[in-house]
Amino acid sequence: MQKLVDGIHKFQREAFSVDEKLFETLVRGQDPLALFITCADSRIVPSLLTQTNPGELFIQRTAGNIVPAYGTVFGGEASTIEYAVTALKVKDIIICGHSHCGAMAGVLHPEKLDGMPAVQAHLQHADATREIVEKNYQHVTDPAERLMLAVEENVLVQLENLRTHPSVAAAIDQGDLKLHGWVYEFETGKVFAYNPQFSQFVPLDAAPQSIVEMDAALPPI
Amino acid sequence: MQKLVDGIHKFQREAFSVDEKLFETLVRGQDPLALFITCADSRIVPSLLTQTNPGELFIQRTAGNIVPAYGTVFGGEASTIEYAVTALKVKDIIICGHSHCGAMAGVLHPEKLDGMPAVQAHLQHADATREIVEKNYQHVTDPAERLMLAVEENVLVQLENLRTHPSVAAAIDQGDLKLHGWVYEFETGKVFAYNPQFSQFVPLDAAPQSIVEMDAALPPI
Amino acid sequence: MQKLVDGIHKFQREAFSVDEKLFETLVRGQDPLALFITCADSRIVPSLLTQTNPGELFIQRTAGNIVPAYGTVFGGEASTIEYAVTALKVKDIIICGHSHCGAMAGVLHPEKLDGMPAVQAHLQHADATREIVEKNYQHVTDPAERLMLAVEENVLVQLENLRTHPSVAAAIDQGDLKLHGWVYEFETGKVFAYNPQFSQFVPLDAAPQSIVEMDAALPPI
Amino acid sequence: MQKLVDGIHKFQREAFSVDEKLFETLVRGQDPLALFITCADSRIVPSLLTQTNPGELFIQRTAGNIVPAYGTVFGGEASTIEYAVTALKVKDIIICGHSHCGAMAGVLHPEKLDGMPAVQAHLQHADATREIVEKNYQHVTDPAERLMLAVEENVLVQLENLRTHPSVAAAIDQGDLKLHGWVYEFETGKVFAYNPQFSQFVPLDAAPQSIVEMDAALPPI
Amino acid sequence: MQKLVDGIHKFQREAFSVDEKLFETLVRGQDPLALFITCADSRIVPSLLTQTNPGELFIQRTAGNIVPAYGTVFGGEASTIEYAVTALKVKDIIICGHSHCGAMAGVLHPEKLDGMPAVQAHLQHADATREIVEKNYQHVTDPAERLMLAVEENVLVQLENLRTHPSVAAAIDQGDLKLHGWVYEFETGKVFAYNPQFSQFVPLDAAPQSIVEMDAALPPI
Amino acid sequence: MQKLVDGIHKFQREAFSVDEKLFETLVRGQDPLALFITCADSRIVPSLLTQTNPGELFIQRTAGNIVPAYGTVFGGEASTIEYAVTALKVKDIIICGHSHCGAMAGVLHPEKLDGMPAVQAHLQHADATREIVEKNYQHVTDPAERLMLAVEENVLVQLENLRTHPSVAAAIDQGDLKLHGWVYEFETGKVFAYNPQFSQFVPLDAAPQSIVEMDAALPPI
Ligand SMILES: [Zn+2]
Ligand SMILES: [Zn+2]
Ligand SMILES: [Zn+2]
Ligand SMILES: [Zn+2]
Ligand SMILES: [Zn+2]
Ligand SMILES: [Zn+2]
Repeated sequence: MQKLVDGIHKFQREAFSVDEKLFETLVRGQDPLALFITCADSRIVPSLLTQTNPGELFIQRTAGNIVPAYGTVFGGEASTIEYAVTALKVKDIIICGHSHCGAMAGVLHPEKLDGMPAVQAHLQHADATREIVEKNYQHVTDPAERLMLAVEENVLVQLENLRTHPSVAAAIDQGDLKLHGWVYEFETGKVFAYNPQFSQFVPLDAAPQSIVEMDAALPPI
Repeated sequence: MQKLVDGIHKFQREAFSVDEKLFETLVRGQDPLALFITCADSRIVPSLLTQTNPGELFIQRTAGNIVPAYGTVFGGEASTIEYAVTALKVKDIIICGHSHCGAMAGVLHPEKLDGMPAVQAHLQHADATREIVEKNYQHVTDPAERLMLAVEENVLVQLENLRTHPSVAAAIDQGDLKLHGWVYEFETGKVFAYNPQFSQFVPLDAAPQSIVEMDAALPPI
Repeated sequence: MQKLVDGIHKFQREAFSVDEKLFETLVRGQDPLALFITCADSRIVPSLLTQTNPGELFIQRTAGNIVPAYGTVFGGEASTIEYAVTALKVKDIIICGHSHCGAMAGVLHPEKLDGMPAVQAHLQHADATREIVEKNYQHVTDPAERLMLAVEENVLVQLENLRTHPSVAAAIDQGDLKLHGWVYEFETGKVFAYNPQFSQFVPLDAAPQSIVEMDAALPPI
Repeated sequence: MQKLVDGIHKFQREAFSVDEKLFETLVRGQDPLALFITCADSRIVPSLLTQTNPGELFIQRTAGNIVPAYGTVFGGEASTIEYAVTALKVKDIIICGHSHCGAMAGVLHPEKLDGMPAVQAHLQHADATREIVEKNYQHVTDPAERLMLAVEENVLVQLENLRTHPSVAAAIDQGDLKLHGWVYEFETGKVFAYNPQFSQFVPLDAAPQSIVEMDAALPPI
Repeated sequence: MQKLVDGIHKFQREAFSVDEKLFETLVRGQDPLALFITCADSRIVPSLLTQTNPGELFIQRTAGNIVPAYGTVFGGEASTIEYAVTALKVKDIIICGHSHCGAMAGVLHPEKLDGMPAVQAHLQHADATREIVEKNYQHVTDPAERLMLAVEENVLVQLENLRTHPSVAAAIDQGDLKLHGWVYEFETGKVFAYNPQFSQFVPLDAAPQSIVEMDAALPPI
Repeated sequence: MQKLVDGIHKFQREAFSVDEKLFETLVRGQDPLALFITCADSRIVPSLLTQTNPGELFIQRTAGNIVPAYGTVFGGEASTIEYAVTALKVKDIIICGHSHCGAMAGVLHPEKLDGMPAVQAHLQHADATREIVEKNYQHVTDPAERLMLAVEENVLVQLENLRTHPSVAAAIDQGDLKLHGWVYEFETGKVFAYNPQFSQFVPLDAAPQSIVEMDAALPPI
């Protein structure tokens, strides 16, 4: 705990002055570039990864970057998404999974979650992830490969869930919002973006401009 | 969107190499200092505020730093908290509210949330915040002051909710976990910590060591 | 009531003998061609419309052909869908809206549902339908046209909801299941099928074979 | 799928003209004789069984003809029932179970539902069916007989659930609505109606007029 | 508070010795005569009214003697009922409403419950009570009479809800359990019991033995 | 059942006249001293234990004196608590557990609850109780001692849950409400009150006045 308090003191002595002007401007309100949805995992630091400043990313983080589908309106995720789209009018939503995700390991191996009933219950929103991996990828047997596969499929599953939120559906239909699916491999620093044309994840740094601009979510069916 | 992609390229060219060794170590697993619960607001950057590195903060972020009380087990918050305490065995949980919070403005002025039913619904978990401000602080009439009051009271309300989670209750009872209530005033860079001895928030930088170490949550009643 | 009982007697005297052999075969189990999801409206008779026999259509009917997204697993819709896909292994699911739908009128004009709280509550699963019509079609002012628009958009919204069900997502991913969006205009006998290539509904009788075979749902994003 | 499309074409060429006048009338609205609640099973065709025309039966169909009791207002069943009674003012509601019902087989043998969590969850609304069969009919050991027993008891259990819906309770109390419990044995074409005087199901074709007119549901206790 | 503590001291000095032997026996377990469900109202004292001793009445009390129908299994009422029937095997359940009930006044006049959202929400389980009084008793205009009517109808509505609980349904079916509907007029000391033969409440003290023994709930429909 | 009816007759002949004046006064409304929350167990008779008269105790009773945390607003407990605090303005709430509690035995030994799914489900609101006993009291092995420990810890857990209710939180904050945790050992007639200063339960008859007056719940954290 002392380390955090020391960090704050350091921030106040050294770092705050750098952003002071920016923070003063931000008192008037935020106008973020995007809603960034990622895992609670401590190894993911969105502002570091995207080299963004305060005010640039509206951020939702819970274990496993799960987005429950719309319909149980009391959830924090539904609230955060609706606020981002309706009040802040963000133009892009990124769901960003990551390598070595503990939540996804739990999706593949529920027995790892014994003694964690709330985690088990919440991961029902990733039931489709598990069902896809178990039914359609029986030929993939390497544990590390299966985990990465689950991470990728889960990003797509959560994008589907995201599209059921009315504010998201209406903004996509209007052409005001794009959805993006990413996977961050923190140990290499690589980011993979879902390319709907080829139905696969491709390295973001190798992607042509067209893919960067492309919506991971095709127009509503 | 292009700005984010450019940021990632910059991260890969310039910043990743700084942390490369660290990231390699982190492949083996995370061992964060604390669970840091804060608002989705883009103006809050926990790693900047606490000057922490990847791997040091497990982070939960949804609008208004709301923590639903235990009992509706499907929520992402319950899952994230249980994972942090049971699987990662964090020793500290910080709930960090902030100045100019839009969600808290919605708690005080629900009419601002018209057209946002999911936000309205979720803020029922801050009903106690509203009820405390409305019933007990009628003498505070300045809007800015009332908003800051709501932010503070909400941190305390969410700490109460947090204590109903079984993993949290058991770890507190065992002496393995401390809870902390903070408010971050981003425009000044100041952080205020709740001091249970005086029942008020005090500037963290002026706090004696004893307060830093103190548990915002007294032993279970 | 007497009319129904007379109808049953007539069925037993006249119609049953026609299908007797078929019914005997069906004792061994059902193997339906498709899951057909439509409104409870009495003017829709799926077997008449599709000229199908007993055993050919597994049928889900509730007001408004609503399909709640996956995640509140106690619903009859989730159960019916999962049974159709997992146990019966249907190859096609059709969501069929219809002209003059009272439920869709209620989506556009909630005041028509005063005194019907359960209908109002259930129609939250069509919130996206209303939000799309209200936000994106302000230029369409003719009431009849707006209602037909809501019927069409609702079919697409419910297809999105349908895709969040794990059994559906896995079967689509595997290539074992196709989704179709139809609108039945009962007063003309016409059926319109959603053509994802052109993002619009086209008359089924004018559709080339390729569209009949086409999946209304594009591959997962 | 082609078969369904061919059927629609046949309907449009041959069958639609027969009902054209009727359909024109129905544009003005529906005024169904009854709400008919039955299983999604493809072998049940209500319009064939009752020899009814479009406009005569408002129909609710989900697996197992389950009617969750009132109180979880988001369900499609509550919505459909309320709409039928309050908006359409139907005078009769029939719950019609059927022989060889897969859902009822699942009630008696939950292990048959492994891999179908949504079905298992939904069948909690038939817990009373299982409990009655297991506790009170231990002497019935023949599997086919036990299944038929479950089908019958389930019709009675769902009638109880139906009576908890406010619109239903008020209409029964007012004398405006009657409830009926039927079981359809599709392989013989027979329909059995519950006779509350003798507490048993009797063949509908042998029933005296008085039983046809009788309410399966006695006046509210 | 002091009054309660003084009462306990008085109990320990004076009253405990009277029941000491009984309490010693009760350590071995309870075997209550009945489950008595009544309102939380302080004016109702079940042990005084029925002149019963410790160990004789298993008691459920919440505002308005509401019994949510089965299906949302997390409620305290479902738990208490199931424990009474399955574990304690009580032979009778009494639902006892009372005169001047504040909860029933709230059912008739929801505006009295402004500022009490949890009460309003819970009273949805008495929606049928309100709907019956509003639709079927428009000719009763005297407020006191309407309130007593609501109290009576609510006892019947909650008996219907009670019958949806599987343990209750199975025990009734087996002949092991009887349900009773009572209304207690505390200002006169009178108790009225529902007589299903005449579909009305009659004074218990004037009731012939046969009515005392009669089940308020007729056999399952 | 006859015994209860005889008891009522006896009450009407003998006991009612004693309280007749009181009951007449109570027609005007109730003004209870406290909300008393205890188990449904038949061996607990609150009016006997506290030697109180009709009108003095507002009473909530369900199995295990469980108080679900706020947030699922349809529960009878939330309704009863809100009514007591907001409408009746009680000054004290006592949660009173008791020795030999069957519900707490079920918390420690869930296998005892087989066949009682509703009890199992409801006891999730005592998950913290189980987790505290299992994790922190492994050295206590005597079954009777463990049960009493669970009873005590459960009173504290439910006090935490109680504090999440908005009406309770606001009234505590305002200084208008005190919470108290008691355990009643019916076989000895002893009552133990939680003393927050020493973090333990002490006999109420030996407690100094200051403890009687003390709030079991310390000021909000
Ligand atoms: Zn992760
Ligand atoms: Zn905020
Ligand atoms: Zn319709
Ligand atoms: Zn069936
Ligand atoms: Zn009452
Ligand atoms: Zn107990």
